[in-house]
Amino acid sequence: MSDDDRIRNPELRSRVMSAQDAAAMIPSGAAIGMSGFTGSGYPKLVPQALAARIEAEHAAGLPFRVSVWTGASTGPELDGALSKANGIEFRLPYNSDPIAREKINRGEMNYFDMHLSQVAPMAWQGFLGPLDTAVIEVSGITPEGELIPSSSVGNNKTWLERARQIILEVNSWQSPALDGMHDIYYGTALPPYRQPIPLTHPNDRIGQPHFRVDPDKIVAIVKTDVPDRNAPFSEPDAVAEAIAGHLLEFFRHEVTRGRLPGTLLPLQSGVGNVTNAVLAGLMHGPFDRLTAFTEVIQDGMLDMLEDGKLTMASATAFSLSPEMAHRFNADAARFRGKLVLRPQEISNHPELVRRLGCIAMNGLIEADIYGNVNSTHIMGSRIQNGIGGSGDFARNAYVSIFMTPSTAKGGKISAIVPQVAHVDHISQDVQVIVTEQGLADLRGLSPKQRAKVIVENCAHPDFKPMLQDYMARAAQTSYGKHAPNILAEALSWHERFVSTGTMLEEPRAAVETGPVLVSSNG
Amino acid sequence: MSDDDRIRNPELRSRVMSAQDAAAMIPSGAAIGMSGFTGSGYPKLVPQALAARIEAEHAAGLPFRVSVWTGASTGPELDGALSKANGIEFRLPYNSDPIAREKINRGEMNYFDMHLSQVAPMAWQGFLGPLDTAVIEVSGITPEGELIPSSSVGNNKTWLERARQIILEVNSWQSPALDGMHDIYYGTALPPYRQPIPLTHPNDRIGQPHFRVDPDKIVAIVKTDVPDRNAPFSEPDAVAEAIAGHLLEFFRHEVTRGRLPGTLLPLQSGVGNVTNAVLAGLMHGPFDRLTAFTEVIQDGMLDMLEDGKLTMASATAFSLSPEMAHRFNADAARFRGKLVLRPQEISNHPELVRRLGCIAMNGLIEADIYGNVNSTHIMGSRIQNGIGGSGDFARNAYVSIFMTPSTAKGGKISAIVPQVAHVDHISQDVQVIVTEQGLADLRGLSPKQRAKVIVENCAHPDFKPMLQDYMARAAQTSYGKHAPNILAEALSWHERFVSTGTMLEEPRAAVETGPVLVSSNG
Repeated sequence: MSDDDRIRNPELRSRVMSAQDAAAMIPSGAAIGMSGFTGSGYPKLVPQALAARIEAEHAAGLPFRVSVWTGASTGPELDGALSKANGIEFRLPYNSDPIAREKINRGEMNYFDMHLSQVAPMAWQGFLGPLDTAVIEVSGITPEGELIPSSSVGNNKTWLERARQIILEVNSWQSPALDGMHDIYYGTALPPYRQPIPLTHPNDRIGQPHFRVDPDKIVAIVKTDVPDRNAPFSEPDAVAEAIAGHLLEFFRHEVTRGRLPGTLLPLQSGVGNVTNAVLAGLMHGPFDRLTAFTEVIQDGMLDMLEDGKLTMASATAFSLSPEMAHRFNADAARFRGKLVLRPQEISNHPELVRRLGCIAMNGLIEADIYGNVNSTHIMGSRIQNGIGGSGDFARNAYVSIFMTPSTAKGGKISAIVPQVAHVDHISQDVQVIVTEQGLADLRGLSPKQRAKVIVENCAHPDFKPMLQDYMARAAQTSYGKHAPNILAEALSWHERFVSTGTMLEEPRAAVETGPVLVSSNG
Repeated sequence: MSDDDRIRNPELRSRVMSAQDAAAMIPSGAAIGMSGFTGSGYPKLVPQALAARIEAEHAAGLPFRVSVWTGASTGPELDGALSKANGIEFRLPYNSDPIAREKINRGEMNYFDMHLSQVAPMAWQGFLGPLDTAVIEVSGITPEGELIPSSSVGNNKTWLERARQIILEVNSWQSPALDGMHDIYYGTALPPYRQPIPLTHPNDRIGQPHFRVDPDKIVAIVKTDVPDRNAPFSEPDAVAEAIAGHLLEFFRHEVTRGRLPGTLLPLQSGVGNVTNAVLAGLMHGPFDRLTAFTEVIQDGMLDMLEDGKLTMASATAFSLSPEMAHRFNADAARFRGKLVLRPQEISNHPELVRRLGCIAMNGLIEADIYGNVNSTHIMGSRIQNGIGGSGDFARNAYVSIFMTPSTAKGGKISAIVPQVAHVDHISQDVQVIVTEQGLADLRGLSPKQRAKVIVENCAHPDFKPMLQDYMARAAQTSYGKHAPNILAEALSWHERFVSTGTMLEEPRAAVETGPVLVSSNG
């Protein structure tokens, strides 16, 4: 397929121009709605051209910054380039770019971390202010002038509708077989006119394959063939495999007890090596005819779709390794009918997550003894990425599972702490916590019962005695004994890490237990 | 209407017996599903008879405790009597009884604090274990053997369906005109069979007026005419009126900006004197044809319904003052067609709250500078009541508003703190905070922007300089500067309150500012 085949509407073909000319149309101070979700389908050229322009303006002593709204994370050509140019004044709703993260954590960029299902509704409600420009990657334009979405859908429908002007990047690297895999729902409205979303199975199609667009708003079209910059596959290690083992045992137990069907329920999962281990376990496990209603489709899900273990997957974006993206593009058509990509307000919609009864599997930074989860803020102040869709899924899931290695930083940080330094998921939204040490089933337990099972089953042996000691003393001295705490110590593990580089206690412990402990903690 | 008119099914009439005989059928260790929501429609006689039986067993040296599941809070004849008898081993999902609260906070009773919309689904999912006995107050029994609900619906449908045996209390104090005001939805299912809930307006009726029941499970019927033990009306004070004033001004502003329709959107509100002030303000404000889709109907809503300001209200229970309950019972029929009482899984359903776009107005214990809200745990460890339905509404609302006086305990506790000691509502679920000092509109703001507006607009002058000082020092020294904190001080205000009885700092401050500050802080 030649480049021109991607732009099949003659009128729009006349608006093709360079990324520099397109970027020149974006005013300083603009709020820009960009495509992009977990490194897929983000614009690659216009943001870089805009970054170059911003650098030139800054060099000339002129101010130039913009607000950037996306679906979720993008790639170095977008968040990286614009952050490096010091060009982002305000960012929402999610970021995982290291340069942008550093700017945010140095206090140089305002970042508004949102539930991903709520971005589009809040934009429509007028709560985010006006949107100046949409910069959207598409995989093609139909003869009728509709837009064929790319490897992510995200908030593109909303940005196209709400922006004053639109710049398109038509990316010929994206597989033409993507056409037909999307389901763009046009039934949303503002209250009091909202209607039930007519989706009752993960594979239901309730919309249309293409974005509608007002052609008069399209001011520029830029051609590109740059690949999505996806992250390499992270191979499961022994810790990830132990976590997956505990979780699969839990699923078997729940099916035996009649609390889950043998086909389980629609799976939602994050990305990373723990998830990869879980998917590999499911691939070879006893459960068949699985489905996924999730945010992103990662390598393991494509393997399971090819194998037939997974019958279909619904998401808003791909999050593939470069190798898998290559494999996918080489023969995407074989996934036709098994994959649906939706707007993120639909992929993550609380109404649908609750109705379908998703099994939510998300990662965490730390959990406390009562089951509150911190997914975002290291030591309570430094943001890692953002809450993403975890809140959309965790609160509304059939069962909400959080998974993590029991330690980080070579054993210096415990994933189980007396009190989390920031809360993203309250204990009501956390039914199961899994580490390589074991699984804590928290359903129907009071705070003290939860603390017992979390510490017993999930904490690392280096930290378990410290947690048990905290709990025992809290039970004696706490102001209230519903969820006993020691206020002066609740965040002391974090304090210790910040000041000494480890949550482990002073060598005092080493004196008592000898050098073995010191060495195991090193 | 004579007592016997309330039990119009002849077969069931034969199962009438004393509360003592009915309570004798409940085994030790049983999980009991009771009716009752915010002091309405709870059983009054059987729990007291059970408490007497438990006390007798304990006096004889025998163990006897039960698990109590309800809709929400009940009355002294239920939670009070059973707690006093030391008869409750485990309690869910909400409690406001002072004796039960004290037992919980002394560590003598296990309490599982749940989102109220999730109680019925989690019971059906099997996550709460088996239910032995249902003890349900009804206002009557139809000739066909269906049950006419009482002044609350709560989880009664689920308890009736899931319990091994059923004990009914038929309460002739309840108005016979309640018949027809309920809407019991029988369309729920477990996934993968869940369907959209076909409700698009607060006044839609999607079910039937009566509970279905298997007559073979009814083992006892007890007659009663004991009133609901509702709380007296709390008159708005100047602080509540100031909060209401700020909130009404916000609504006017939002309507002017086109972000809210002139009829607003369905209102959800808690109870208490701040809510009463807001309702009084709405009663005399510029907004017409209002609706409510909420958890409970309080005095002010009945006033507004009578006045026509409110066209209808949907809830799961009444929460009336004794005077208003008397007025309501004297002529309940005039509210026919304007009131709908639903199961709490429907009144609080995330799907419906999101679809309808409710304006959520809830109270709080404390909020922190970043907009995280603690609704439940005083000093992080002592539970006040429970999260109730606040999480169902706050996360899914069109706009989520939290209201509170800026201080408590005569000025010794600040409602705005550096870090909340417990989190119920994460900052993503808190769009607006209002105190008598002012209103903080947090939409679209980064953490540091939120901190500035919360402290500036909402903090009490006695605490504002302390908060500003904390923020200034945190901005310099914090590990991360996205949401700067000082870990060693984040919970120090709570520590100070626990050890000194006030969050205010040492007289050092008084030396600087003279005796006026001391006196205003007294």
